Amino acid sequence: METYVILRDLAIIILAAKFMAILAKKVKAPGVVGEIIAGLILGPALLNLVKPGDFINQMAEIGVILIMFSAGLETNLKELKKSGLIALAIACVGVAVPLAGGAVLYMCIHGFAAPGTEEFFRALFIGSIMTATSVGITVETLRELGYLNGRVGQTILSAAIIDDVIGIIVLTFVLGMKDPESDTVLVIGKTFLFLVISLVGGFVIYHIMKVVDARYPHTRRIPIIGLGLCFLMAYAAEKYFGIADITGAYVAGIILCNIRDAGYIDRKVSINSYMIFAPVFFVAIGLKTDFSKVDTGMLFFSVAFVLVAMLTKVIGCGITAKICRFKWIDCLKIGVGMMTRGEVALIITNKGLNLGIIDSSYFTAVILLIIISSISVPILLKILYSKSPDPVKEAA
Amino acid sequence: METYVILRDLAIIILAAKFMAILAKKVKAPGVVGEIIAGLILGPALLNLVKPGDFINQMAEIGVILIMFSAGLETNLKELKKSGLIALAIACVGVAVPLAGGAVLYMCIHGFAAPGTEEFFRALFIGSIMTATSVGITVETLRELGYLNGRVGQTILSAAIIDDVIGIIVLTFVLGMKDPESDTVLVIGKTFLFLVISLVGGFVIYHIMKVVDARYPHTRRIPIIGLGLCFLMAYAAEKYFGIADITGAYVAGIILCNIRDAGYIDRKVSINSYMIFAPVFFVAIGLKTDFSKVDTGMLFFSVAFVLVAMLTKVIGCGITAKICRFKWIDCLKIGVGMMTRGEVALIITNKGLNLGIIDSSYFTAVILLIIISSISVPILLKILYSKSPDPVKEAA
Repeated sequence: METYVILRDLAIIILAAKFMAILAKKVKAPGVVGEIIAGLILGPALLNLVKPGDFINQMAEIGVILIMFSAGLETNLKELKKSGLIALAIACVGVAVPLAGGAVLYMCIHGFAAPGTEEFFRALFIGSIMTATSVGITVETLRELGYLNGRVGQTILSAAIIDDVIGIIVLTFVLGMKDPESDTVLVIGKTFLFLVISLVGGFVIYHIMKVVDARYPHTRRIPIIGLGLCFLMAYAAEKYFGIADITGAYVAGIILCNIRDAGYIDRKVSINSYMIFAPVFFVAIGLKTDFSKVDTGMLFFSVAFVLVAMLTKVIGCGITAKICRFKWIDCLKIGVGMMTRGEVALIITNKGLNLGIIDSSYFTAVILLIIISSISVPILLKILYSKSPDPVKEAA
Repeated sequence: METYVILRDLAIIILAAKFMAILAKKVKAPGVVGEIIAGLILGPALLNLVKPGDFINQMAEIGVILIMFSAGLETNLKELKKSGLIALAIACVGVAVPLAGGAVLYMCIHGFAAPGTEEFFRALFIGSIMTATSVGITVETLRELGYLNGRVGQTILSAAIIDDVIGIIVLTFVLGMKDPESDTVLVIGKTFLFLVISLVGGFVIYHIMKVVDARYPHTRRIPIIGLGLCFLMAYAAEKYFGIADITGAYVAGIILCNIRDAGYIDRKVSINSYMIFAPVFFVAIGLKTDFSKVDTGMLFFSVAFVLVAMLTKVIGCGITAKICRFKWIDCLKIGVGMMTRGEVALIITNKGLNLGIIDSSYFTAVILLIIISSISVPILLKILYSKSPDPVKEAA
C-alpha cells in the first residue's frame, strides 16, 4: 500500500470527529461521545467510509497512551496519596463483584456449575472479561468537565489503574486453572517487580529530569524526553510485566508530575493528542463496531451481558466508596466513572477465543459493552457533575 | 502484531533523534543532519535496533506532509508572486540539466545510443531519476537557520514545487515512449487541472476559513480544520492528479497563509511535527540505508551517479539564477538548496524496476544520493548562509 493512502482516512477522521464533538457539545453532551459516534457513522456500521486497519489501530493506541500520560502529568500527588488506600478498596471490590456477576449470568443461562468443573471455569472466565475498567474515556470526560484533579476524579483514576493490575492477576488466576503456561505466582511477582522498579526508577528519573529541566527550562528537549520516557515505560509495562501499556504511560506521567515544566510537557503532549491521536482513538472505537452479523438471540444475551457488566461495576465501586464515607452522589460518580470498558476486555475475550474457552459470539457482547459504556459514561458523568459539582473546580 | 510494539521504536527514534540533533548543533551542523545520522546508526547499516516498517514509513510520510504544510503556512505570498517566474525558469533548467547529465552518464558507461533505440530510452530514464528535487530537508534547514521566508528561500521553495510537477511530466513523457498505459497529454491535462482546481478551490476555501476564523478565533477547530484540509489536499494531489502529496500539503498551507490565525495553525502543526512526526521522517531516511550488499563496482558507479546528480542540479539551477540576476553566492544557495533528493527518486526507480527498464543495483545509487544529499545540503547551506546572510533575517 502506498503510504499516502492513510492521509484520506486521517483527514476524514479528524474532521468528522471535530464536527461531531462540536455537535455533541451543542446538545450538552461531552465531546468524546460525538467522536465515538463519528466512528460509528464512518465505519462499517453505517457509511463504511473508513475501515479500521493496522495504521488506525496503532495511531489509536498512541492516542490513549497520550491521554493517560497527560492524566499522569496532571496528577495531584498529595491527593493521590490520600486516595490511595480508598482506591485500592474500591478497585478490589470493583473487580470482585463483576467477576461474580459474570459467572452468575453464565450459570443463569447454562445452568448451575459446581466449582472445579469445566463449566464453572467457563463461568469465571466470562466474569473476568467484565473486570477491567478502561479509564481513557472517563479521564478525557473529567478533563473536559474540569474535574480530573478533584478528589473524586483522582480516586477514579487511581482505582482504575489498580483495577487494571488486579484484573490481570485475576485473569491469570482463572487461566491458571486451565492453561499450563499461565503461572499465577510469576504474574504476581512481575506485578510487584513493576511497582518496585517504577518507584525506584521513577525516583531516579524524577531527580535527573529535575536537573535537566532546571538547566534547559522550556526547551523542546524537555517534552521530547518526557514523551520518550512515556513510550518506553508503556512498552516495558506491557512487554516485560504483562501490565497494560496505558498504565505504564500513566506512571510515566506521575513520575514527571512534580518537575517544574510538568505543565509545559503536558501542553505540548495535549496538542499532539487533540490534533491527531485522541480523535483517532475515540473514532476507532466506533469504527470497530459492526452489527451486520447480530441476530436476536445474540442481541438478547448481549444486552443482559452489558447490563450485568455495567451494574456490577457501579454497585461494587459505589458501595465501597460509600463505606469509605463518600457522599452518595460522589459514590455514584465513582461507580459510573469506573463503568467504561475498552480494549482490555477485547484482549481477554480474544485470549479466551484462542484457548477455546468461549466462542466468537462473545465478541458482539463485549463490543456492545464497550460502545454503550463509552457513550453513556460521559453523558452520565456530565449529568452527575452538573447536579453536584466538586468543591474545587479547576479551569476547563 | 500487538499495537504496543510500535511504542518501543517510536521512543528510540524520538530520543535518539533529539540527542543526535543536539550533538549536531554542538559541532555547528544543522539538527536535521543529526537526525538522519541517528537513523543510520539505529538502522540496519549499524546497530539494527529499529527496522523500517509500514508504520514508521506512514509516520514519516505524515512528517514530511506536516513540514510542507508548515512551509506553506509561513509563505510570504508577495515574495512568492515576485519569485514565481524566476522559480519557473530555475525549475525548468534544473530538470533539463540533470536529465541530460544522467543520460550522458549512462552512455559513458554503456556506449553511445542513438535516439529512438532501447538504450537511448534507458539512458533518458536514468536521467529522469535525477530530476526530482525533494525539498523537505532544505525547508527544515532554512527554517532552522531562520531564512525560509527570505527571497532565496522562497525561490528555492517555489522552484522545488514546480520542479516536482515538471519532473512528473518528463517522467510520463519518457515512460510514454515505452509504457502504453502512460499518456502524456492526460498527465499534462491533469497537472493543469490541479492548478486550476487549487486556484479556484483555494480561493473559495480561503474565504470560508477567513469567516470561520473571524467567528472562532484561536479555537481548536481552526488548526484541526486546517490540518484536515492539508491531509485531504495531499491525498487528492497524489491520488487524482499524480502530483506528489507533499505538493498538495504545501498548496494547502499557501491557501491558508493569509488568514489571521495562520500563525496559530502553524504553531500547533509545528508542535505535532517536532515532537513526533518530523523526527520519524528524518530518522527513516537513515533507517532505509543498508550498505551490506554493496560491492566495489557498484560503489564506483554509485559515486559517479551521486556526483552527476548533485552537480547537474547545482549547475542547472545556479546558472539560471545567475541569469535572473541573483548574486553569485545566492545562486550557489539556490543550486545547493535544490540538490536534495528523496522518496520521489526512489519511487521513480521502483517504477523503472517494475517495468524492467533498470535492475535493482540502481537502488543503491539512489539511496546513496538521498543520504549524501540529505546530509551535505544542510551543512553546505549553513556554511553559505553564515558567509552571506540574507538581508532580512527573521527570528529563528
